[in-house]
Amino acid sequence: MENYDNLSSYNRDFFIERLRKNLDENRFNHCLRVEKKSKELAIRFNANITRAGISGLLHDYCKQMPKEKFIEAVKKFNLDEDLLNYGNGIWHGSIGADIIREELDVNDEIILNAIRKHTIADPYMTDIDKIVFIADFIEDARDFPEVDMARKIAEKSLDDAVSFELKHTLEYLINNNKKIYPKMLNSYNKWVVEEN
Amino acid sequence: MENYDNLSSYNRDFFIERLRKNLDENRFNHCLRVEKKSKELAIRFNANITRAGISGLLHDYCKQMPKEKFIEAVKKFNLDEDLLNYGNGIWHGSIGADIIREELDVNDEIILNAIRKHTIADPYMTDIDKIVFIADFIEDARDFPEVDMARKIAEKSLDDAVSFELKHTLEYLINNNKKIYPKMLNSYNKWVVEEN
Repeated sequence: MENYDNLSSYNRDFFIERLRKNLDENRFNHCLRVEKKSKELAIRFNANITRAGISGLLHDYCKQMPKEKFIEAVKKFNLDEDLLNYGNGIWHGSIGADIIREELDVNDEIILNAIRKHTIADPYMTDIDKIVFIADFIEDARDFPEVDMARKIAEKSLDDAVSFELKHTLEYLINNNKKIYPKMLNSYNKWVVEEN
Repeated sequence: MENYDNLSSYNRDFFIERLRKNLDENRFNHCLRVEKKSKELAIRFNANITRAGISGLLHDYCKQMPKEKFIEAVKKFNLDEDLLNYGNGIWHGSIGADIIREELDVNDEIILNAIRKHTIADPYMTDIDKIVFIADFIEDARDFPEVDMARKIAEKSLDDAVSFELKHTLEYLINNNKKIYPKMLNSYNKWVVEEN
C-alpha cells in the first residue's frame, strides 16, 4: 500500500476505490496507464515521482461526473463562469481539480494544477504539469497516427513534447469542427509559436 | 466622385489619397480589390453597397502603421491592453478602426465594426462584417489552394463562407506555427463548430 504522506490523508487504495466508483472500466484503466506513464516520465526527467503518480492517477477522476456537479462547483469555488459555455472535456480538469481537493483531500497545489491544466495546458507549466499533459497523450494504449512521434519526442524533451501535443490536438479539433476552449490558444502561443 | 453623405465628411477621393500615403502599392491595390469584392457581395446578398464599399476600401488603412501609433491608440481609446501582446496582424483591425474614426471622420459603427472584425471575425457579425471578412479572403488576386472553393461557397451563403474561411485560416496558422489571437476561437466556436 502506497502512502502519500503529507499530500493527502488518504492512500492509493482509497483513491483506487473512488476512481472505480466514478469511472467506467475503460476510463479507470486509462487512469492507471497515465499514472504509470507519469511516473516513467518523472524518473526520466528527474521530477517528483509521487506527485507525478498521483496527478496521473487522478487526472480524469471527474471525467464522468454529471453536469450539475460542475455547475455547482463553479459557484461554490468562485470559478470563471465562462467555463459554463464549454463541456465536460474542459470541466473535468479546470473544475475537477477543486472537486478533487474536496473529495480526496488533496491539497497540494502542484498536483491540483497538473490536473487543472491537463486538457488545455497553460503558458506556465511546471514539470509535473508537463508530465501529466504528455502522459495522457502517449500512455501505452494510445493509438493514433502521431503517437509514435510523440513518444519519441518525449524521450528527449518535455517542452518539445508539450509543443507537439498542443499543435496536433488543435489540428485534430479544427479538422473535426470540434469546440475549442479559447484559453488553449494561450498555451499554443507560448509553446508552439516559433518567436517564443 | 463618390460622396459618402452622412457616413463621413470626406469623400472617396480623400480616402484614396490617404490610403496611397499610408500603404505601399501592393497593399493599396489589395484595398481597391477588397472594395470591389465587398460591393459585389453586397449586391449579391442585398446589403448596403456604400457601407460595404467603404469598409472594404479602408479595412487595411492601418496595416503599415508604426507600432508606436497602436500603443498610443490602446491608451487613448481605452482598449484591452492584452492586445499589446499581439502584433500588427491583429492591431490594424482591432485598434485600426478607432484610428480610422479619428483620421478619416468615419463615425458609422457598422463600418467601423466591419474593419474591427475583419481579421479575427466575431461570434456576432452583421452582413457587412461578413462581407468584408470574406472579400478580404477571396478578392480577385488571391491565389491559394482553397480560394476557388471559398469563392464558390460565397456565391451561396455568407455564413458558410465565414465558416470556411475561419477553419482554413486557423489550419493555416497552426500548420505554420503562427501566433493566434485567442478571441479568434470564439469566432471559430460560433461559426465552425457543428453543434451551433
